Amino acid sequence: MRREAIDVRVALLGYGTVGAAVHRLLEEQGDEIERATGHRLRVVRALVRDTARERGFSPDAGVLTTDFAAVRDDPAIGLVAEVMGGLEPAGEYVLELLRGGTPVVTANKQLLARRGPELFEAAAAGAVQLRFEASVCAAIPVIKVLRESLVASNVHRVLGIVNGTTNFILSAMEAGSTYGEALAEAQRLGYAEADPAEDVGGLDAAAKTAILATVAFGSRVPVEWVDVEGIEGVTREHVAAARAMEMHVKLVARATLVDERVDVRVGPALVDSHHPLAAIEGAFNAVMLQGDAIREITLEGPGAGGLETASAVVADMVSIVGTTGTGFLQNDPVWRDLEQLPAGELTSPWYLRLEVEDRAGVLARLAHELAAEGVSVARLVQQPGDGHAVLHVVTHEAPQGGLERALAAIRSLPESRGGVSALPVVSDRGIEDLGWA
Amino acid sequence: MRREAIDVRVALLGYGTVGAAVHRLLEEQGDEIERATGHRLRVVRALVRDTARERGFSPDAGVLTTDFAAVRDDPAIGLVAEVMGGLEPAGEYVLELLRGGTPVVTANKQLLARRGPELFEAAAAGAVQLRFEASVCAAIPVIKVLRESLVASNVHRVLGIVNGTTNFILSAMEAGSTYGEALAEAQRLGYAEADPAEDVGGLDAAAKTAILATVAFGSRVPVEWVDVEGIEGVTREHVAAARAMEMHVKLVARATLVDERVDVRVGPALVDSHHPLAAIEGAFNAVMLQGDAIREITLEGPGAGGLETASAVVADMVSIVGTTGTGFLQNDPVWRDLEQLPAGELTSPWYLRLEVEDRAGVLARLAHELAAEGVSVARLVQQPGDGHAVLHVVTHEAPQGGLERALAAIRSLPESRGGVSALPVVSDRGIEDLGWA
Repeated sequence: MRREAIDVRVALLGYGTVGAAVHRLLEEQGDEIERATGHRLRVVRALVRDTARERGFSPDAGVLTTDFAAVRDDPAIGLVAEVMGGLEPAGEYVLELLRGGTPVVTANKQLLARRGPELFEAAAAGAVQLRFEASVCAAIPVIKVLRESLVASNVHRVLGIVNGTTNFILSAMEAGSTYGEALAEAQRLGYAEADPAEDVGGLDAAAKTAILATVAFGSRVPVEWVDVEGIEGVTREHVAAARAMEMHVKLVARATLVDERVDVRVGPALVDSHHPLAAIEGAFNAVMLQGDAIREITLEGPGAGGLETASAVVADMVSIVGTTGTGFLQNDPVWRDLEQLPAGELTSPWYLRLEVEDRAGVLARLAHELAAEGVSVARLVQQPGDGHAVLHVVTHEAPQGGLERALAAIRSLPESRGGVSALPVVSDRGIEDLGWA
Repeated sequence: MRREAIDVRVALLGYGTVGAAVHRLLEEQGDEIERATGHRLRVVRALVRDTARERGFSPDAGVLTTDFAAVRDDPAIGLVAEVMGGLEPAGEYVLELLRGGTPVVTANKQLLARRGPELFEAAAAGAVQLRFEASVCAAIPVIKVLRESLVASNVHRVLGIVNGTTNFILSAMEAGSTYGEALAEAQRLGYAEADPAEDVGGLDAAAKTAILATVAFGSRVPVEWVDVEGIEGVTREHVAAARAMEMHVKLVARATLVDERVDVRVGPALVDSHHPLAAIEGAFNAVMLQGDAIREITLEGPGAGGLETASAVVADMVSIVGTTGTGFLQNDPVWRDLEQLPAGELTSPWYLRLEVEDRAGVLARLAHELAAEGVSVARLVQQPGDGHAVLHVVTHEAPQGGLERALAAIRSLPESRGGVSALPVVSDRGIEDLGWA
């Protein structure tokens, strides 16, 4: 039984990369959001400095405005997302909206870390919600998990890699770059600003750490409490020593509850390669939450990016307009009837281990059988076995059905020694990058 | 402004490890739950087979009952957690409760994977919620994240390590054990049942995969669709080949959306060491969610355990009694005033890099300065530098203040060459286990 969707009129403060992505997600995912909430979220106003500038996602005529009053004084606007950044005028705008009874979603970590008390007081005065998932680690839902899933878990320690720029630079230094080279590469790829001070000096991570500590411990942790050290002092010697001990140099954010007192810090640390944070490479972020009942839960994902940040903004909007009583989220998760993919159609790269007689021409016959089913060999290693040869093959993406037919043919070759097995390969990298030691 | 807490009377179906842990969490974390929801959850009934058996957490007199009717027919009971396991009678009990209008939280993956349609139909008929976070990967909040944070993310692929027993066995095989030895060790540690078939054969993972696919894709995915292969066929040769290619053998659960059709499978795979799932060791679980707007988010944590499972059951209870409008969760996260830990009090193991003159007695003086401040050396490596010696020291846990005083003293030694730096070490293992290559 489908109820009539109720429109919620949305305004955006700011229409840069994140704002345009929020608008696009709300339009493209409108059906999903309506199914989950019973509401259709429509962007009716977007505050910008210059309405004439080219925009990545074109809003309808009349949506762009340079006048904040057009947002504040429109009683039909039910929800505002602040995606303009900066402390002012963003702070005043958000305060006015909250006091006036409009719920706000913000992606602004510095605003939240520096003016949290005022903002939440205004939200209470207006009896509306202020949500801020996007302010910490973009799409990674750490705020929601802390506030809703871990209420009874006594989280006493938060450990994180919460700045992608510095993690990218440190990963590049591990791969042999100097600090200067790595920074230049990060700037070239758009991971670092022209003025990288806020990232490499740890200030971006400090604001996120203050927010995480506040939410995790339920006590106001001002950003001024965070002991901050950047990565400027990390040398190749540190990286080399870390490698010798099977550790990695990471910029680690830490919030710790010690005898009901709070310690918050951001600084370079050596992370043991067996620790979940050690595996966080490049511009990714991760946050580990340690608590009594959960031991430790780690959330990992892209910590920045316009679309990723927008997805967190939209998730907060969905939480505000509400999912209670709509059936979909609370009860049956099913809303469509998809079919099963026929057996054999799924493609994957594959690892094959084949035991064959060690004589001329075998390789050619195997390659022929694979090629006949469209299975293309990416890497091949031949090892001597016990009176026979063992072939290790890694294929490019190939459908399972073709692979199985090729293996059946290979098994029935006179040269086959019977030992034929296949495992799918899971890799984010190209198969070409896999080595053989 | 604190509102009066409203009691919610809770019944448990089953009072084994998980049930007792749920009861304990509800009592010990009662204040936190009340702050978050405005409700006090009280266990008033627990269905067991034998009321006389010894229990880990002792319920009050009259709570234990062997009569399901005492739960079903008590109109004062507002919420039931099914933690007894098995398909029957658990299934009938849950159906009766839902139809009668009582919300249910369940940790029962087989029940959900096999009788999901009936259960959700009953929930709809009773107009109540059925929540099941604990049915997949215990404390890892993957169901909530999929259903509430990723509504607009078009998740098209779920990859997971969702069975701790098999992951433990495969980790042990990588460390040199045979399959038989690893299984025996898992049984000794309580990670594997006496009859391990459901785990090692992949059936446990298959049920979780069906649930994850259903929630991720919004379409019913019956457990019968899951193509299942266990780890019984994994050999040391596979593990060795994986290592040669810098990969790991893992039992991987996969749900993939291909052209609006669903492929679900569980089986051994080779996972590239750079992939987030490769780092999941021992009995831990992880689930990676891939979608358009989020790229990929990975959630990792303990996938089993009584307390961990109970924490997910309690999280679902908190979601059902609701957090809307209670101020704490929706608005200001702050409910207490903690103090800052004084500077220097936080303890950590430390890595120290010290450049000193290469002559007799230097080591003794350094060790003396460290010991004078209570800093105990766990490992020390001396390397020749350019006309001097470089010492790499890893300490046991030591407070930062003492360490900094010791370093100041070392810097002022006549033997010091000035190069003194310190980084904290983050490790889950004992410092003793760190090597030097």
